[in-house]
Amino acid sequence: MVDYPDSLKRLINELARLPGVGQKSAERFAFFILYEDREAGKRIASAIQEILSNISVCSRCNNIAESDLCWLCSDPKRKKEFLCVVEQPQDIIAFEKSGAFNGKYFVLGGLISPLSGVSAAELPFGKLRRIVEEDGVKEVIVATNPTTEGDVTALEVKRALEGLCVKVTRIAKGMPQGAAVQFASPFVLRDSFLRRIDVD
Amino acid sequence: MVDYPDSLKRLINELARLPGVGQKSAERFAFFILYEDREAGKRIASAIQEILSNISVCSRCNNIAESDLCWLCSDPKRKKEFLCVVEQPQDIIAFEKSGAFNGKYFVLGGLISPLSGVSAAELPFGKLRRIVEEDGVKEVIVATNPTTEGDVTALEVKRALEGLCVKVTRIAKGMPQGAAVQFASPFVLRDSFLRRIDVD
Repeated sequence: MVDYPDSLKRLINELARLPGVGQKSAERFAFFILYEDREAGKRIASAIQEILSNISVCSRCNNIAESDLCWLCSDPKRKKEFLCVVEQPQDIIAFEKSGAFNGKYFVLGGLISPLSGVSAAELPFGKLRRIVEEDGVKEVIVATNPTTEGDVTALEVKRALEGLCVKVTRIAKGMPQGAAVQFASPFVLRDSFLRRIDVD
Repeated sequence: MVDYPDSLKRLINELARLPGVGQKSAERFAFFILYEDREAGKRIASAIQEILSNISVCSRCNNIAESDLCWLCSDPKRKKEFLCVVEQPQDIIAFEKSGAFNGKYFVLGGLISPLSGVSAAELPFGKLRRIVEEDGVKEVIVATNPTTEGDVTALEVKRALEGLCVKVTRIAKGMPQGAAVQFASPFVLRDSFLRRIDVD
């Protein structure tokens, strides 16, 4: 049977493992690199090698880091009494852009999800507890996504910190700023009713 | 403003130039490589470098090739009197899998498209004419996609070969095998009427 050369098939298979990429897209990427823009291919390969050698994981908070500690863990101006627990390093960038928080972060690297086979044992709750103790953290804000997995994980964070003198909070749920009531889902409207606040 | 490290931003920008990939997908790919599966990242980088050094473009027909000539141009068993003109190397694999053709191929690398700014001058019609003359090709089958661009390009192939003693044909249009009349588009049905054949 006629087919692509082995090295090309290998690249297509590897690219097809990227999140959300199927066999057909992987083929398009490979032919783009091979046929349309070989220079772009070279730049992608060297950029991958560069990030893999320059960027690793912060030994403390699991954020991406260019040295042993990330820029947040090594910044003495950040308030270590407040620790924000997020799922992914990308979430940290999102919060930093919002300017809402000047404490430290902790990246779980995943959420508890029985459907995907991720249990509490696979998340770094032991490390989280140690940091909370060592830093004398006063409040842990769980900023996982407002989904079932995010909520279950938030409960598990609270359980993992039991016995410590720390307040565990969760980011607010409700209507997103700028949204329209008529287009909001029943769940969002329910949350915004249940969690209503006084008008000052 | 807080942001990703430079080397990571560079990779995201490069990945975002792959066909059909936006900034958000590129970010997901980069974090997958950086955070979820660093080994996969290494394999992608080395597979890219491998195909770029192993696979180039056939000096004769513009197909992908592991040496100066591709396996089709260097195969003496293929009938050089028949030349099938396709847009991309992937099209060759598709025809080879169909087993419908045992001649040679020629890859245009694009189609004439005024909307995308691709004119006839950018396609290798001169090289095509030279091969047709040198090989004494009797029939050129234009197998570009059955679209406006494919049809316009087919006309241009015919014009580029004017004055040579060669028949220029176009792959058939009509109902695809296995399709249902009730779901076919009016254009497809129109083609299948206009190009109807005798029932033997």
